[in-house]
Amino acid sequence: MPSKPSIPKGTRDFSTDEMLKREYIFDTIKKVFRMYGYQPIETPAMENLSSLLGKYGEEGDRLIFKILNSGDFLSSASDEDLKKRETAKLSAQICEKGLRYDLTVPFARYVVQHRDEIVFPFKRYQIQPVWRADRPQKGRYREFFQCDVDVIGSDSLLNELELIGVIDDVFERLNIKVQIRINNRKILEGIAEYAGAPDKIIEITTALDKYEKIGWENVKEELVNKGLNKNVLQKFGNIIQVINQNNRQKIEFLHSILLDSEIGLKGIEEIRFLIDTIDLIDLKSEVIFDLTLARGLNYYTGTIIEAKSADVSIGSICGGGRYDNLTGVFGLEGVSGVGVSFGADRIYDVMNQLDLFDNITSSSTEVLVLNFGEAEAKYALKILGLLRKLGVKSELYPDQVKLKKQMSYSDARKIPYIIIAGEEEIKNNELTVKIMSSGEQKKIPVNDLESFILSLIKPSE
Amino acid sequence: MPSKPSIPKGTRDFSTDEMLKREYIFDTIKKVFRMYGYQPIETPAMENLSSLLGKYGEEGDRLIFKILNSGDFLSSASDEDLKKRETAKLSAQICEKGLRYDLTVPFARYVVQHRDEIVFPFKRYQIQPVWRADRPQKGRYREFFQCDVDVIGSDSLLNELELIGVIDDVFERLNIKVQIRINNRKILEGIAEYAGAPDKIIEITTALDKYEKIGWENVKEELVNKGLNKNVLQKFGNIIQVINQNNRQKIEFLHSILLDSEIGLKGIEEIRFLIDTIDLIDLKSEVIFDLTLARGLNYYTGTIIEAKSADVSIGSICGGGRYDNLTGVFGLEGVSGVGVSFGADRIYDVMNQLDLFDNITSSSTEVLVLNFGEAEAKYALKILGLLRKLGVKSELYPDQVKLKKQMSYSDARKIPYIIIAGEEEIKNNELTVKIMSSGEQKKIPVNDLESFILSLIKPSE
Repeated sequence: MPSKPSIPKGTRDFSTDEMLKREYIFDTIKKVFRMYGYQPIETPAMENLSSLLGKYGEEGDRLIFKILNSGDFLSSASDEDLKKRETAKLSAQICEKGLRYDLTVPFARYVVQHRDEIVFPFKRYQIQPVWRADRPQKGRYREFFQCDVDVIGSDSLLNELELIGVIDDVFERLNIKVQIRINNRKILEGIAEYAGAPDKIIEITTALDKYEKIGWENVKEELVNKGLNKNVLQKFGNIIQVINQNNRQKIEFLHSILLDSEIGLKGIEEIRFLIDTIDLIDLKSEVIFDLTLARGLNYYTGTIIEAKSADVSIGSICGGGRYDNLTGVFGLEGVSGVGVSFGADRIYDVMNQLDLFDNITSSSTEVLVLNFGEAEAKYALKILGLLRKLGVKSELYPDQVKLKKQMSYSDARKIPYIIIAGEEEIKNNELTVKIMSSGEQKKIPVNDLESFILSLIKPSE
Repeated sequence: MPSKPSIPKGTRDFSTDEMLKREYIFDTIKKVFRMYGYQPIETPAMENLSSLLGKYGEEGDRLIFKILNSGDFLSSASDEDLKKRETAKLSAQICEKGLRYDLTVPFARYVVQHRDEIVFPFKRYQIQPVWRADRPQKGRYREFFQCDVDVIGSDSLLNELELIGVIDDVFERLNIKVQIRINNRKILEGIAEYAGAPDKIIEITTALDKYEKIGWENVKEELVNKGLNKNVLQKFGNIIQVINQNNRQKIEFLHSILLDSEIGLKGIEEIRFLIDTIDLIDLKSEVIFDLTLARGLNYYTGTIIEAKSADVSIGSICGGGRYDNLTGVFGLEGVSGVGVSFGADRIYDVMNQLDLFDNITSSSTEVLVLNFGEAEAKYALKILGLLRKLGVKSELYPDQVKLKKQMSYSDARKIPYIIIAGEEEIKNNELTVKIMSSGEQKKIPVNDLESFILSLIKPSE
């Protein structure tokens, strides 16, 4: 026999067991999205490369999977480029399409393309796979799902508040305890202004983030290496003392030092609104105003949001923020939006580690009817008809083989109830139900099947 | 502004309205699959080209989307092939992966790769998109979904019977009236043997299929052109008279003329079993033994199944059959299976034409709370908390804009209930509910919200 076939590295098959767990996550997320008024869209796996390239930086462009044109793909390749093996130029000549790299750019493209049909504010969610030609490693795949939820066409901070509610609700339903951290790019800009280095926002934010891990002396050294002067360092020192204070203290302190920064004050006002109103929405999760949170600084323009598991150290499992110009790159200016993305793979890992998938197998077959031969199988078909009408997931073992084999199938599939209907049962219009957890067996008239089975199983569908 | 962005031809965006309808179809199909004990798997969008090529014939190979290798994709391309522009050779040198063309080959690959973990008989379903570089035209796309359900590792005809039950159940739930046609490749082989042309099974079956459309004289001419002799034609004439008889008559007649064909008799026995037992499973659809049904003759080895809408003329909306060697091509011999595939796009078209999507909008937002300003919005947040706890899909209009704009949003989103909570309502701890279908408004205490809203809405989630 030839060697086993395989799949491309960085991709995965999902077994039935994994699928049921993953669907549980996706279904929970979807339910919450809909509960808050978000509606699904889907976009094609393939986008024109002209839509994708230049949106993710140089490194991102390299990680986009390109699709070879069909037919004579060399027809527009130049002799010289072929001879010189100009891969960059040639790839543009032989490929027009690529696989989507995230859901954000296709969403922006969608909004611009369909702007005349869309009702704004547009509350949409999108749960689809994306592909990246990244080097595969533990927890990093070349095909993975993103679950994005955004509202665009509204500036209101009520949207941020709602998304924080969505995050809290999703993780409450999944039984994952999280900390939600928020920050605001405008505050970070204000701090950079205050420190006298308005163009160094990224360096300063990175330094803030590192302070807890590497200490003040090391951070100072880094900042000096990055060309920041003594005056900046001193002001920076003022900020640092607030990092470990509570939300209110941070807001008041920053308000006092950012009085001269218009943008900084705007940021404070926004964070203050969120912290004030969060009390009204009855969250299960702790919300922390975290000055060191700096994800997506090159596209977020206001609020930044991130959630981490309180029990498993695995990085962010949800994150997002406010962007003021999502669609500008496709020619539609002035559309503001805010959104977050749930990381299904990490959520899966967290739930696995915390053993939170216990009750999921209920979506699998509940009753197996054993197969004792042709006459018995025909009798079984009627029983199955009754069960399925009740919404009980059930099946007949298809082959008339030894009981041992049928039982080991049942065990492997973890089917909780077995129905035995042999010659004697048929004669008396009865059947025997075996409860696998206890080993108990009970013979009942077929007419009692409905009440008996409904006393054991609560059909979910 | 630059021209609107677009998507590759043959691909589609799905709007929220389309998504809700499509999800309704997929969810219904999934529910039925699970009710019969089938379990989900998923495979990656990309497969190694070595798994895909050579499985779909020459034309199929051409229609596979190939993915350009990352990085220096020309590294294994030969100078000579580049110079001579040998596209076929080069594509193999610069591409290792392709997008899946169907779900059958990836499933076969999956079974062989994971055979040590799989419990047989393996009842699986798979609902995923596939990609084909076909020329796009009305109803034919380059990206479309397949919904496959198969059981492999069991020869029992009970599986065929079960799948006929699955088809019937799916279309009953979707409210689509169908005719289910079945045939058996062994009978077609038997007929070819009987006619004295055992190698002409495809020609003879095609002729059978054409008889009703073009008449006996024309079919005869075609068969003569294909080199079939007078003797064959005469025997063929005998078969034709049975085409319009009922299932039992067909079976008895064919049984009488196929007495000398071992394989033909086996086919008759199989069809007879299905027709006999179908009465036991209480189908809503008519099942017709149709001698002219000949789909997938190059891979089906036994039963062939197809379903068509009884009301809309759009071709097959579900089809499949028994195959005896699914996994042989990956080196695992002797695994028999049977399966069918539902065509989601055509089912969607049928349901649209028959106006069967009436009640689907219920999965969308049920209550909109209007926005009258900051204080009112805070009051609204509490109301929303109550509604969502009850499972009522609800949202607050995020911006404080003119009522007219908020109402036109509500109309466009087809939201059935509006809650108004202004200064006066807040003062009295009340709210006003407006029922859009009747225009009726009612002011109620917040404490009565639960009972009042549950008298209007039955939460689905």
